[in-house]
Amino acid sequence: MASDVFCQIVSGELATHEVWRDEQVVAFLDHRPVFKGHVLICPTRHVETLLDLPGELMQPLLTVAQRVAAALGPALGAQGSFVAMNNVVSQSVPHLHIHVVPRTKGDGLRGFFWPRTRYAAGEEAEYAARLRRALLPDDA
Amino acid sequence: MASDVFCQIVSGELATHEVWRDEQVVAFLDHRPVFKGHVLICPTRHVETLLDLPGELMQPLLTVAQRVAAALGPALGAQGSFVAMNNVVSQSVPHLHIHVVPRTKGDGLRGFFWPRTRYAAGEEAEYAARLRRALLPDDA
Repeated sequence: MASDVFCQIVSGELATHEVWRDEQVVAFLDHRPVFKGHVLICPTRHVETLLDLPGELMQPLLTVAQRVAAALGPALGAQGSFVAMNNVVSQSVPHLHIHVVPRTKGDGLRGFFWPRTRYAAGEEAEYAARLRRALLPDDA
Repeated sequence: MASDVFCQIVSGELATHEVWRDEQVVAFLDHRPVFKGHVLICPTRHVETLLDLPGELMQPLLTVAQRVAAALGPALGAQGSFVAMNNVVSQSVPHLHIHVVPRTKGDGLRGFFWPRTRYAAGEEAEYAARLRRALLPDDA
């Protein structure tokens, strides 16, 4: 098992403010939160990115994300949540982690959070075609 | 079934640049992408937020997110992906959708993307305690 910091958290070698632990999933506070109460959810098994995540861990991980998201209201007065995962680019630790961040209306995140661009004419169809080809099974 | 725009996309009433469809999941281009090739992944069933997502749809949804994230490299030259869901706050359409956004190193998103704050002394333990209490089963 690789010894990234999240593996050290799983093993108990590194202490955190833990909020959930079961055999497959551990959840703890991000030390530098986007908003206070920001939780990170990791598989206990060393999995680097979403691309490496075995199918049988998907429901356990999302179940904990769902429970944590549901707890943000009663625990912290949040009105919603932001649930996100960075794969490779902007991924600070090479061990899959889902961020669950409490949100409230007017918390100021909206304005700069989702910068958007536009497709030129015809370009959207071309991008979709490229993705569809890459999504075809190998034998198609 | 509620008739939000994603239900209209599921039913075929609204056309999109679709990249994936199976019985439980549909995936199509976001018309105003963060980066070109930005895909939205929805359950075909009307589910409003992560809190309403039935367990049996978790693996089907994440499987399509995984396939789309894996396709971004070969299709578009992406080096990574950003996979995210807004629940209630910043959620533009009240039908669960997972954003899968292609990322490349130096694409400029990092700087303003994850504004971070700090806990005051003792505050982190208090937030964790509140979340742990809210995560206890009802009969605990």
